[in-house]
Amino acid sequence: MPKALILSKKRADEYRELVEKANLPDLDVMATSDMAEALATGAECEIIFGEPSLIPALLPEMKNLRWVQAMWAGVEPLLESSLRRDYTLTNARGIFGGLMSEYVFGYLLMHERRVMEHYQSQMERRWERAETGTLRGKTIGLLGVGSIGAHLAETAKHFGMSVRGYTRASETSPDVDSYYHGEDLLEFAKELDFLVSVLPNTSETRQLVDKSVFDVMSPQAIFVNVGRGSAVNESALVEALQSKRIAGAVLDVFQTEPLPENSPLWNLPNVFITYHTSARTVPTDMTSIFIENYMRYLHGKELKYIVDFKLGY
Amino acid sequence: MPKALILSKKRADEYRELVEKANLPDLDVMATSDMAEALATGAECEIIFGEPSLIPALLPEMKNLRWVQAMWAGVEPLLESSLRRDYTLTNARGIFGGLMSEYVFGYLLMHERRVMEHYQSQMERRWERAETGTLRGKTIGLLGVGSIGAHLAETAKHFGMSVRGYTRASETSPDVDSYYHGEDLLEFAKELDFLVSVLPNTSETRQLVDKSVFDVMSPQAIFVNVGRGSAVNESALVEALQSKRIAGAVLDVFQTEPLPENSPLWNLPNVFITYHTSARTVPTDMTSIFIENYMRYLHGKELKYIVDFKLGY
Repeated sequence: MPKALILSKKRADEYRELVEKANLPDLDVMATSDMAEALATGAECEIIFGEPSLIPALLPEMKNLRWVQAMWAGVEPLLESSLRRDYTLTNARGIFGGLMSEYVFGYLLMHERRVMEHYQSQMERRWERAETGTLRGKTIGLLGVGSIGAHLAETAKHFGMSVRGYTRASETSPDVDSYYHGEDLLEFAKELDFLVSVLPNTSETRQLVDKSVFDVMSPQAIFVNVGRGSAVNESALVEALQSKRIAGAVLDVFQTEPLPENSPLWNLPNVFITYHTSARTVPTDMTSIFIENYMRYLHGKELKYIVDFKLGY
Repeated sequence: MPKALILSKKRADEYRELVEKANLPDLDVMATSDMAEALATGAECEIIFGEPSLIPALLPEMKNLRWVQAMWAGVEPLLESSLRRDYTLTNARGIFGGLMSEYVFGYLLMHERRVMEHYQSQMERRWERAETGTLRGKTIGLLGVGSIGAHLAETAKHFGMSVRGYTRASETSPDVDSYYHGEDLLEFAKELDFLVSVLPNTSETRQLVDKSVFDVMSPQAIFVNVGRGSAVNESALVEALQSKRIAGAVLDVFQTEPLPENSPLWNLPNVFITYHTSARTVPTDMTSIFIENYMRYLHGKELKYIVDFKLGY
């Protein structure tokens, strides 16, 4: 009978209830947020279903470990070269697209509809019939077109936009009008109205968005980062914003998180900061992935969403 | 050779150029923003393509008038009972849905994603990982499901929402999950998360949204008005907002416009005021309607978007 250890800082009980409710065949489940308890009673488990940040400390003790289902999309904590890789690592995919679309298009619409300017007029009780913009006909560039990028592309099409995609190799989304790869980065970024990065943190994405990228974008362009802070040269971004080379930014991720109090990003005009909250894991969605993968595990089928330790995603 | 008079306060020249560029067969066009000039030189025209507010003053003098293509969706100025109705009136339809979706969902997403609270934290340089909401799974009610309502329904479905529609009779949008009519108004409004009115100003819609409607909505509900201010009992709305019977409102239209400086709506918490700008006419879109209808007119076919003077839309 396989034993699974559920690890979650704040939601261990919620996850245990969700998994137990599914009545998975042959599964013995324990759940904790306490690392000492996990080591004392969970060391013999062959499955971990948990938050990646909690797992590295346990890895050396888990003699029977065969499979880790990460509760996040990003699995950086498990990619440290000193850590073992003799188990199957799967991550969370396909459950963040909707939330990311809500975040990204919420801010893009706000920008086009000049919500902050209108709100300022309202505070002054001033009836102000200034022109507003529209997403229709504008061009969005997606850095990374996995399941999240594909959802963003679909939403962009719904609003009548042109969509470019920059990917390592794949060209799977039907909502992307034109794909770019490798050295075509500047061609991809040229005169974009919106650049959205959903890139993970890997050796290939590090500092990919740098001065040369901002230099070819439209001066009206907005940069959105919902991927990882490491994909951006943050001082080049600050410089592009300060010199008005681009018009604004919406940033959910940063080189250092929490964003240091002395970062110039906090109060640049037309910059919106959020707190790595653009798409948080919803336990019911996450548990559905675990359940599906557990059934595959039990029947010896290949798991979904396997992470390639070398690629990092 | 039919003569057409283009009437626009600010864009007469732009419209004339757009119409002339289409090289419409047999059409003689003049354009002005000046009423005296319109009367002096345009009185013999059989067609008016213009902004409804400018037209009533000319109506008695237009001896040959056969067709008016209004540049707006709302044609109230032409519905006064003292005015002649011996011509075909067509209005603007099908070109506002996208803009209305951008406006409505921009504000709904902003609300769910707590953009204003996040921005407040940002101003205080505070890394604040508060929970945010999602549109997915929420219920939106559309008061009026014509071409604009149908577009809103499609966008709501894209974001995974349940959609209710309240209409006079028609049930044409496939994106509406359940339709309500006539006396089912309170059933329709019950426990809605979002209520969006796109109702025109007619005798049947006047004060339709009143205390009884707000009383059955969810206390978390947001009311959005992008139709006409007359469809709402504004003092009941103020009272519902002040007593927190509903959570907020996004208002583009009002009983009196511009909104009077002493209106309590200006600075109620969680109320966003805009300035009858949710969907302004885009001249290229509007001219496409005129062109299509002119070709129908020329060939004796029925025009599109004919207004029923009695219904008012």
